[in-house]
Amino acid sequence: MPLTMSEQAQAILEGNRRALARLLTQIENESETIDETLATLYSHTGGAQIIGITGAPGTGKSSLVNALAKAYRGQSKTVAIIAVDPTSPFSGGAILGDRIRMQSLTGDPGVFIRSMATRGNLGGLSRATREVIRVLDAAGFDVILVETVGAGQSEVDIALLAHTTVVVEAPGLGDDVQAIKAGILEIADILVVNKADLPGAQKTRQALRAMIDLGHPVSRTQLMNRYGRRLFAVTESASNMLWIPLLVETVATTGMGIDDLIDAIDQHREALEIYGLKAVIERQQIQNELLDKLTNILVNRILDEIPIDKFNQLIDRVQAREIDPHGAINIILDMGS
Amino acid sequence: MPLTMSEQAQAILEGNRRALARLLTQIENESETIDETLATLYSHTGGAQIIGITGAPGTGKSSLVNALAKAYRGQSKTVAIIAVDPTSPFSGGAILGDRIRMQSLTGDPGVFIRSMATRGNLGGLSRATREVIRVLDAAGFDVILVETVGAGQSEVDIALLAHTTVVVEAPGLGDDVQAIKAGILEIADILVVNKADLPGAQKTRQALRAMIDLGHPVSRTQLMNRYGRRLFAVTESASNMLWIPLLVETVATTGMGIDDLIDAIDQHREALEIYGLKAVIERQQIQNELLDKLTNILVNRILDEIPIDKFNQLIDRVQAREIDPHGAINIILDMGS
Repeated sequence: MPLTMSEQAQAILEGNRRALARLLTQIENESETIDETLATLYSHTGGAQIIGITGAPGTGKSSLVNALAKAYRGQSKTVAIIAVDPTSPFSGGAILGDRIRMQSLTGDPGVFIRSMATRGNLGGLSRATREVIRVLDAAGFDVILVETVGAGQSEVDIALLAHTTVVVEAPGLGDDVQAIKAGILEIADILVVNKADLPGAQKTRQALRAMIDLGHPVSRTQLMNRYGRRLFAVTESASNMLWIPLLVETVATTGMGIDDLIDAIDQHREALEIYGLKAVIERQQIQNELLDKLTNILVNRILDEIPIDKFNQLIDRVQAREIDPHGAINIILDMGS
Repeated sequence: MPLTMSEQAQAILEGNRRALARLLTQIENESETIDETLATLYSHTGGAQIIGITGAPGTGKSSLVNALAKAYRGQSKTVAIIAVDPTSPFSGGAILGDRIRMQSLTGDPGVFIRSMATRGNLGGLSRATREVIRVLDAAGFDVILVETVGAGQSEVDIALLAHTTVVVEAPGLGDDVQAIKAGILEIADILVVNKADLPGAQKTRQALRAMIDLGHPVSRTQLMNRYGRRLFAVTESASNMLWIPLLVETVATTGMGIDDLIDAIDQHREALEIYGLKAVIERQQIQNELLDKLTNILVNRILDEIPIDKFNQLIDRVQAREIDPHGAINIILDMGS
């Protein structure tokens, strides 16, 4: 017998991991029956520290996430790991990754691991990731580590869901094919040179240092504003906080530097609080979410009202230059009303 | 006395460059009085070959665009250049770039140059670029070169407006800080190693060749699908066209390799036509545009109906966990109806 909605929320709040896993699957499947559960859980959010970890394949990002999880467990904090792969439409690779992880974190009830991959479009993945983070927050995890691979907009979207974003680099990824990306550096609160015991680590560190020194610091609020509109006022101190990314060296497999990384994350968290920026980030996240949800609902509503063959006919007519796109929009809006 | 709308369209179709420049400014300013002109011009589009050229700063991308423009002029084709800078909120740098260009292309009535920079958000820039391309197409330019700098989603968006996308790399941008990005390679139909006379060019070429060999070819329709939903059927041959990026070496400043690049662009254009993919790309572009425009209109309509202080109060209440985001959406939708 399936749990009723309020029972489902209750079970999750009481630490029932099976109920938790089931809700996360429902989120991924875009189930429409979970709104009430999500609404109940929402009032229990806000306690978790959300840390994004991103980087190219081969940087040892997953090992670093494991090492961080262990270190936080050593501080008696509970940890949830969300591994998001926007580049893969299948979760096969991600599931394999889970199994490898399980070997080192297995049996610890204070750790919860979840993989997510692209099912439909990237917007859907960002939306699902946001809900999954929220549910894990409500479920009482102290630290939520959101690991993303891939490139481009998806990383930025997901980074903006976190309080602190860690970008991982490593030496030896090929001299000319270093996957250091301008857009990635922009979202980095902390830069990590992982595999710092490998030859070339010094060169990687110097290159990152040079990029930090060259870079114009971008405030988190500026960055968030670039990806949406801001409708509310930001206090001057918050909009003035310019954070120069910290540079940390680690060897995730031996644990070297992990304490330094945790220290850097703590420094960033304190800075956010001192400048009142944590609340600003949260407001911006809520606003982005409301606009994103509204958009999604309104577009789906319109598309539901228009038969698909009518929509296709409109595309045909625009392509044949019988009508222009603006005219097609007017026809659609007339249909919908 | 300002021209009436149909006169404005007429003037542009007759080759009046002053009327053309004025309309492009109106597009950038999101003027609402130009819909009729755009509708008139739309029926005259479809003749231009649209080529996107993208790459990191320092790759000599602008010189390459100049060299391409001269080569197409040598074939008696008219050329429009749109230089888009999504990283800059100011057009100062772009305007300077124009002046430098002007020195080599000046006085040739068969060349038209326009710079665009971010005014508001990136979505607005993509939207304006799409309209500017369309107007230049209607104005009768044979070739439209769309040059973009910057990183991330904006490049992808703008690349998807072109028939053929050229990604420019160069040696000597720093060993560890090569700005080769995974997302960029994905959109490349043609890869150019510019500054091929510099030391290190061979290494850059080998690295790109290795990346091409490693890469899973992504079809243009797959890529476009990833950034939106596809509502229409694609013929099997079109969805099966997998294009392995061509690799070309150039020295834009001396003209070396420019003929090879034009040859590669022609090859790609022929492949698109053989597979029937040109029409598929156009359909996808039209569909994306309709969904994008719909979204924009519907969200603005809702936001216009809700007083800004009401919206802020809702954000406050969500932040205070009094209501959840879904509940806030329902309140907004109730207000709007």
